Amino acid sequence: MEKVIGQIRAAQEKHREELLDMLRIPSISSDPAHKVDMERTAQWLLTKLQSLGISSEIIPTAGHSIVYGEYMGAGDAPTILIYGHYDVQPVDPLNLWNSPPFEPDVRDGKIYARGASDDKGQLYPHLLAAEAWLAVHEKIPVNLKFVIEGEEEVGSPNLQPFVEENKEKLACDAIMVSDSGFFARGVPSLVYGLRGMAYIEVIARGPNRDLHSGSFGGAVCNPADALAGMVAALHDEKRRITLPGFYDKVRELSQAERDGYKALPFDEEAYKESLGVGGLVGEEGFTTLEQLSARPTLEVCGIWGGYTGEGAKTVLPAEAGAKISMRLVPDQDPEQVAAAFEEKMRELAPAGIELEFITHHGGRPFLIEPDSPYIMAGKEALRQAFGQEALLTREGGSIPVVDVFSQCLQAPVVLMGLGLPDDDLHSPNEKMDLDQYHRGIEAAAHFMKLAGEIGK
Amino acid sequence: MEKVIGQIRAAQEKHREELLDMLRIPSISSDPAHKVDMERTAQWLLTKLQSLGISSEIIPTAGHSIVYGEYMGAGDAPTILIYGHYDVQPVDPLNLWNSPPFEPDVRDGKIYARGASDDKGQLYPHLLAAEAWLAVHEKIPVNLKFVIEGEEEVGSPNLQPFVEENKEKLACDAIMVSDSGFFARGVPSLVYGLRGMAYIEVIARGPNRDLHSGSFGGAVCNPADALAGMVAALHDEKRRITLPGFYDKVRELSQAERDGYKALPFDEEAYKESLGVGGLVGEEGFTTLEQLSARPTLEVCGIWGGYTGEGAKTVLPAEAGAKISMRLVPDQDPEQVAAAFEEKMRELAPAGIELEFITHHGGRPFLIEPDSPYIMAGKEALRQAFGQEALLTREGGSIPVVDVFSQCLQAPVVLMGLGLPDDDLHSPNEKMDLDQYHRGIEAAAHFMKLAGEIGK
Repeated sequence: MEKVIGQIRAAQEKHREELLDMLRIPSISSDPAHKVDMERTAQWLLTKLQSLGISSEIIPTAGHSIVYGEYMGAGDAPTILIYGHYDVQPVDPLNLWNSPPFEPDVRDGKIYARGASDDKGQLYPHLLAAEAWLAVHEKIPVNLKFVIEGEEEVGSPNLQPFVEENKEKLACDAIMVSDSGFFARGVPSLVYGLRGMAYIEVIARGPNRDLHSGSFGGAVCNPADALAGMVAALHDEKRRITLPGFYDKVRELSQAERDGYKALPFDEEAYKESLGVGGLVGEEGFTTLEQLSARPTLEVCGIWGGYTGEGAKTVLPAEAGAKISMRLVPDQDPEQVAAAFEEKMRELAPAGIELEFITHHGGRPFLIEPDSPYIMAGKEALRQAFGQEALLTREGGSIPVVDVFSQCLQAPVVLMGLGLPDDDLHSPNEKMDLDQYHRGIEAAAHFMKLAGEIGK
Repeated sequence: MEKVIGQIRAAQEKHREELLDMLRIPSISSDPAHKVDMERTAQWLLTKLQSLGISSEIIPTAGHSIVYGEYMGAGDAPTILIYGHYDVQPVDPLNLWNSPPFEPDVRDGKIYARGASDDKGQLYPHLLAAEAWLAVHEKIPVNLKFVIEGEEEVGSPNLQPFVEENKEKLACDAIMVSDSGFFARGVPSLVYGLRGMAYIEVIARGPNRDLHSGSFGGAVCNPADALAGMVAALHDEKRRITLPGFYDKVRELSQAERDGYKALPFDEEAYKESLGVGGLVGEEGFTTLEQLSARPTLEVCGIWGGYTGEGAKTVLPAEAGAKISMRLVPDQDPEQVAAAFEEKMRELAPAGIELEFITHHGGRPFLIEPDSPYIMAGKEALRQAFGQEALLTREGGSIPVVDVFSQCLQAPVVLMGLGLPDDDLHSPNEKMDLDQYHRGIEAAAHFMKLAGEIGK
């Protein structure tokens, strides 16, 4: 093991440069203009896996391809499926980036680039750990199956069919996912709960054309105004969500969990300061940390209607729309929530407004009992790499594929996040700390050893 | 007079072609990219006025220039100031136009182009009427002062200073404005009341950057959601506007006025059908026509925030904004209303939200006693040109400059609209009926004769 770690430490510069190289490819999955970049990134990963001697292929889907790699050289040792995604979020607002999102910039020990933390910089350590094992011992202590998809940021529409159709091919003892983060700098953590999601776009249509706000205003229902009212009515004054039956299946927090939350290091003043806000507004009766990960939410991710350019235009718009993401907790069901959303919005729509709904993606919430030896191995790997005891926490984000893997492959999912809370995922100036990245490679290597000892 | 009308009828093709020529210049005043087009349009009008032998000049302002022309050949006959504007609204959404907005298309007896009705096609008839009088009689029965500005669609910021500084130069007996419309096809009307306006943009700012809606949603106030709630709270359930003191100065409708509204031809079912809406939503206790012109309104002309592109992005946006136009009636004051808007919005803003306000433009509402002989002359001119008795009506739109002229020059304003209600001002497929245009030239010529006889 020491030799493997030594090998990893000696190759830090090479490891950094390779990541920068991958980060230069603008693999934005939601934008058709970047289709070729998606293919380039898949090819880049394929080439790397093949260079390690790992049997690999690019598997086409109805959307972006999956990169699949398989190392079965560990005989009857356990098999770990390593999941990651090579696609990234869009970059707008571009003007808020301090350096171009696809020209990775290393400043103050951090790599600034879209995808630095989500997920290229968390996925790649597992490949480099495998490389180090192979370089030192010509073998890896576990069997590995890499599943690297290109559609995580658009809801993984083609991953579930792929996993379902390939249950045997993908059979494994545990699934390793690094697509989350530490609880705080210096506080490594394994996530045992994730929120699910229902993401719906609603378009409110009124008159059959944009109208002059002076000639028609006052009698004709304004879709932008109507939509604002409908969106506003989705929360009550206690910031509870008003969809019918929304809380029926929400698993209440146990006292033990609430005590666990209280024990976490969290400075609310520092949190507010880091966000530049004077106050926080969340569901009454819950602490900020509980609101952020153990309670369901409804957020306006986008709203549009009428004239939004410079200056003024006096128009009563023909339509307006909103993109609404709801984060769900166990045991809420994304489809039931989406149906309740439509029902509520139709009930709220005033006369003269027609609604259209577009369901963008959904994912079930995830909560596991943290007693699996693979989870313990992940916890120990983090401790060995980072020198700190790892906590078990819940996270507010969603990784819908975790549920897919968990359900289809009937194996525990180890969420060994390598990012930090200030990585600005999905925001301008996304970054990855170089130290997290390099130690992340070590953690991945430790995990391979620890997992390889399970069952022996 | 007959010869003048004959001259006008003989020149219809030339009149149409000249208007098409002017409509081809994309004089969008709000877009700096069209600055040169603004200058070209002013030059086009100057050339035309000069070709009539009317002493003319282009007067620079801090923004777009004013075209000024003066004909004083009628001795002690009254002097009429003819106001119009050569700028037009933006054209988006461009994809909804059936023909390009600046390639005027004549179909079914209508000219489709941006500015066809607002205001190039209503302004130009007055120049052509003057031309006809000069061609036939080598003189016009009234003195004329043309004031043609290029900033009406951006709130005429430089017109008021110009009028105030040039009271003597602009002294006149009446002001003629054709920038409105008939009550209905075949129902000519003179507008004796216009709504005023306060147009304010509000920007709600929350966290100092766009955030991941999963990691931060539920505790951090979402500016798009907050803004929706604030905008929704600006109306109560009776569709009354909730700004403090908003209705204090609203002049109530007299029974005579309400009876007048009832007597107007209006088919609510046909109106809804023309707009493609299943229902109307206006202030409780007032008829649709009253809501549309005699009652104040608050409309969302634009709303934006977060991700508004294709597909989904899971973001808690850093900011969101709305452009709000309030139409005012006598005796509301735009500045007081703007102040009340700010006060109310600040009161509504939740913790963690900072507000910025941008005042775009305002204009006082306008209501005159229709007893002026110039108004009577306008009414008679419409009757002679269109063969129908003209009504006196109020209109929902705003022409802020009317108040400027009325106050500064102390002369009655004759609002002799030549458009039709279905002209789609400010919308895609703006049009002007050719018949309205050609008869409008005749009405302008009749008015010159009738006004010339006043005081004799």
